[in-house]
Amino acid sequence: MVNYKLTISYDGSRYLGFQNQTQFENTIAGKIEEALMKLSGEDVHLIGAGRTDAGVHALAMPANVYLKKHYDTNELLIKLNELLPEDIRITNVLIVPKNFHARYSACGKTYRYTCYFGEEKPVFKRKYVHVLNKQPDIEAMKAAAAILIGEHDFRSFCKITEDISTVRTVDKIDICKEGDYLYLTYHGNGFLRYMVRIITGTLLDVGMGKRSASSVKGILDAKDRTLAGPTAPACGLMMIKSDYMPSTDS
Amino acid sequence: MVNYKLTISYDGSRYLGFQNQTQFENTIAGKIEEALMKLSGEDVHLIGAGRTDAGVHALAMPANVYLKKHYDTNELLIKLNELLPEDIRITNVLIVPKNFHARYSACGKTYRYTCYFGEEKPVFKRKYVHVLNKQPDIEAMKAAAAILIGEHDFRSFCKITEDISTVRTVDKIDICKEGDYLYLTYHGNGFLRYMVRIITGTLLDVGMGKRSASSVKGILDAKDRTLAGPTAPACGLMMIKSDYMPSTDS
Repeated sequence: MVNYKLTISYDGSRYLGFQNQTQFENTIAGKIEEALMKLSGEDVHLIGAGRTDAGVHALAMPANVYLKKHYDTNELLIKLNELLPEDIRITNVLIVPKNFHARYSACGKTYRYTCYFGEEKPVFKRKYVHVLNKQPDIEAMKAAAAILIGEHDFRSFCKITEDISTVRTVDKIDICKEGDYLYLTYHGNGFLRYMVRIITGTLLDVGMGKRSASSVKGILDAKDRTLAGPTAPACGLMMIKSDYMPSTDS
Repeated sequence: MVNYKLTISYDGSRYLGFQNQTQFENTIAGKIEEALMKLSGEDVHLIGAGRTDAGVHALAMPANVYLKKHYDTNELLIKLNELLPEDIRITNVLIVPKNFHARYSACGKTYRYTCYFGEEKPVFKRKYVHVLNKQPDIEAMKAAAAILIGEHDFRSFCKITEDISTVRTVDKIDICKEGDYLYLTYHGNGFLRYMVRIITGTLLDVGMGKRSASSVKGILDAKDRTLAGPTAPACGLMMIKSDYMPSTDS
């Protein structure tokens, strides 16, 4: 068996997410597995670094898949892209050690959330931004974000679907404005379901003056999802990258 | 009657062009006229600065329309956008003098053509680029473009559909590379049907070594469309702006 690492860029607008428990057809992983099966004639299972939700995008989502045959990586990339729809592109293929696992080998992840607070929703980025009705108070958002940095139990900021630890380390929440756009860039060792979107929704509440920056400490401590802000819309979220040890990081 | 100037941003991917002689429904102008009629109850006719072809986009296409009623411009903008699909946005509404005509009052126009020569078609800009299979020779393209600057009969570089003069002045063809993208920016007093795309197709032929830069002089002089290069794909083209006298330029 050969272990292939694929890097995938996709527009999640018309999909049910990267992977979905009950449905196969309208997922990113489903589309890629279909193409891989067509190419290899093998039963395949694609392992993604993350399981982005319906409507969430990825600039570079790593995944791995075992295939019996040895393919030229560049040829595999070209053939897969021929079979895939235009909103899913394989941007890199690499042969990696057998023990490489796109999810468990990842030591860090970067997500970016994009908001727009200009007059009219920008036509060419309409699927990739969350539109705000005014410019938020960025300094207040930064103060609130600082409270979340470090290792914490993020139970208040996630949707619990399995009995897993909700402790994660977030080492960066960078908030920056460029023209009418606001970018929130997150880096951490891992993110729980809806975690980036719920943190974003809460920080936006702070930015809009609906809650104080300091209130975030109480939300974190309460370990109660109902106290945090709304889950920000999926369209604004993009998985940017996953970190691995150098040998498999390409 | 009040003369309103609308500035329109649109993704032309799923439309038959800005305006179409035979069809109304699947055009940008058709969609806007439909919204204007719904709002005003009047029969309206939208005059665009240009008639972009099927699949061509616009960052800021000016148009004007006469309505009997006096509307607050900001309110008109908001109401129109509520009625329009997300890939067509009105970005500005202005009341202009009665003699303002979006096409005839325009004294200059800017178009941009975007090519991409990287490995894989970029997912998030997939609808707005023309993908090349290698990086073209930009210096050769610049030399060829220089020949076209000035007032010329551009008969070789257009599709003649009416008995009109084919003399135009092109005062700028800026060719610049940014990463894996190549941008061709055109400015002139007006452009004939397919003119920007045929010039682009010819310049790309030069860039790909299929014809020499100096051959462009012969093509221009021959006044024969069959001698020029192919019409570059619509998706790469975007109308950027139209110039007017200061009072109506917003």
